[in-house]
Amino acid sequence: MEEYLKKSIRLADAEHMARAAMAKATELGLSIAITIVDESGITKLFTRMDDAPLMASDASRKKAITAVGLGLSTGEPWFNFIREDPILREGVHGFNDFMLLGGGLPIVAGNQMIGAIGISGGHYLQDQECGNAALNSL
Amino acid sequence: MEEYLKKSIRLADAEHMARAAMAKATELGLSIAITIVDESGITKLFTRMDDAPLMASDASRKKAITAVGLGLSTGEPWFNFIREDPILREGVHGFNDFMLLGGGLPIVAGNQMIGAIGISGGHYLQDQECGNAALNSL
Amino acid sequence: MEEYLKKSIRLADAEHMARAAMAKATELGLSIAITIVDESGITKLFTRMDDAPLMASDASRKKAITAVGLGLSTGEPWFNFIREDPILREGVHGFNDFMLLGGGLPIVAGNQMIGAIGISGGHYLQDQECGNAALNSL
Amino acid sequence: MEEYLKKSIRLADAEHMARAAMAKATELGLSIAITIVDESGITKLFTRMDDAPLMASDASRKKAITAVGLGLSTGEPWFNFIREDPILREGVHGFNDFMLLGGGLPIVAGNQMIGAIGISGGHYLQDQECGNAALNSL
Repeated sequence: MEEYLKKSIRLADAEHMARAAMAKATELGLSIAITIVDESGITKLFTRMDDAPLMASDASRKKAITAVGLGLSTGEPWFNFIREDPILREGVHGFNDFMLLGGGLPIVAGNQMIGAIGISGGHYLQDQECGNAALNSL
Repeated sequence: MEEYLKKSIRLADAEHMARAAMAKATELGLSIAITIVDESGITKLFTRMDDAPLMASDASRKKAITAVGLGLSTGEPWFNFIREDPILREGVHGFNDFMLLGGGLPIVAGNQMIGAIGISGGHYLQDQECGNAALNSL
Repeated sequence: MEEYLKKSIRLADAEHMARAAMAKATELGLSIAITIVDESGITKLFTRMDDAPLMASDASRKKAITAVGLGLSTGEPWFNFIREDPILREGVHGFNDFMLLGGGLPIVAGNQMIGAIGISGGHYLQDQECGNAALNSL
Repeated sequence: MEEYLKKSIRLADAEHMARAAMAKATELGLSIAITIVDESGITKLFTRMDDAPLMASDASRKKAITAVGLGLSTGEPWFNFIREDPILREGVHGFNDFMLLGGGLPIVAGNQMIGAIGISGGHYLQDQECGNAALNSL
């Protein structure tokens, strides 16, 4: 039997990314929640800053799940994919835990997706900025 | 260890607010359901008037959850926040228990949100009116 | 960034195992449902034979989830682990989708668990027999 | 209006506890998942070590929820409370997210519960040991 190999994010890297996202949030004057999932969508790390809005917790998870679900970032990339077709545009909301708002980004190593990060706490453009800071920290 | 302090609504005040909301509802000829949640979104008080529509029970809860989730009232305040940006406008429905209809209001003491009230039973403008009566009774 | 490598079952092998389990079921005069999950507990293959009892579908899934959850087969192995300690014996039922009945078996390649198979449709001893036939077919 | 004050765990302390729990796990040769919830049962931090069993993720959450739900540690303390009364003993499993297995401990500051920690990954006695290491690290 031959196996199928999956690359998965390590906890050490997830922790590193979470710290970078929180540093960016602090710089922006935000308190965020962060969910990092592995390549199978299973939560690896979750952190909620002390003043993060209640809504941010679950939203961060959904953004991560949506990003890892198709390898596509939430926000503009997902919106561009669905905007012209009404069936896609309305239909995607039927996916479990789908979240259109920006702040969910796939984590890629080489040419393989090894997980995703979801950020919530500010405007989705700010959440995206924190997510990008996390990706760039690797 | 230093703790993080949260101010939370007391039951006595929640009861006082519920009575004020029901008095306003009676004045408007409505039967409403009321959910009051604490600062963490946990239900503190729920009341359903004898003739309240079935739909009202859960809607009152969702309105309270939405209001406390970001500290923003449902109805116009939320709609104004999302109306111009299609990603926000469609995306917010991905938040757990999100309810756009008016009648969910944060309860603030000093500069801190200590809970939220959600009202349902009439047109959302009437629900808002009952919610405002509740807030003003404090 | 260094990645964490996971070995995962391939669909071709899952199909091979399912055929072997169904052949054994037919030999025993049973109609079974089969769930094969990958190393992360995500369903890779599900098959329900034409006359499989309704109860079998979900039970096959729970057995696979339980087997992959700790790398321990359902039935005797799990029971031997919990039988003497009342806290373990009662407590394990708190695990999500826990199923004590035999018929859930980890799929191991080398020294790594690459998935699990769950069988339901007959007495749990028969389900186990079908599961073993599947494992032995590799 | 007078408010009700709640003490809540800060993220910095939750992170400190998680590190202490992981250090103990490593010492015991275990890979664990850790959930730390605040005084309202809302997740503050979740961490899953690279080789933690799949079953550990949700179990750590349930242990934390059970511990914070009544201010009683899972494992022996909960079991001693229910063991002599069959209605209690069987009935507690009806609580949402109830988990009897040890490894869930309230986090107390002064005379107030400010959160709870839940650990899963080894035998529940080992999970408890990791939880105690976390509490003692404060």
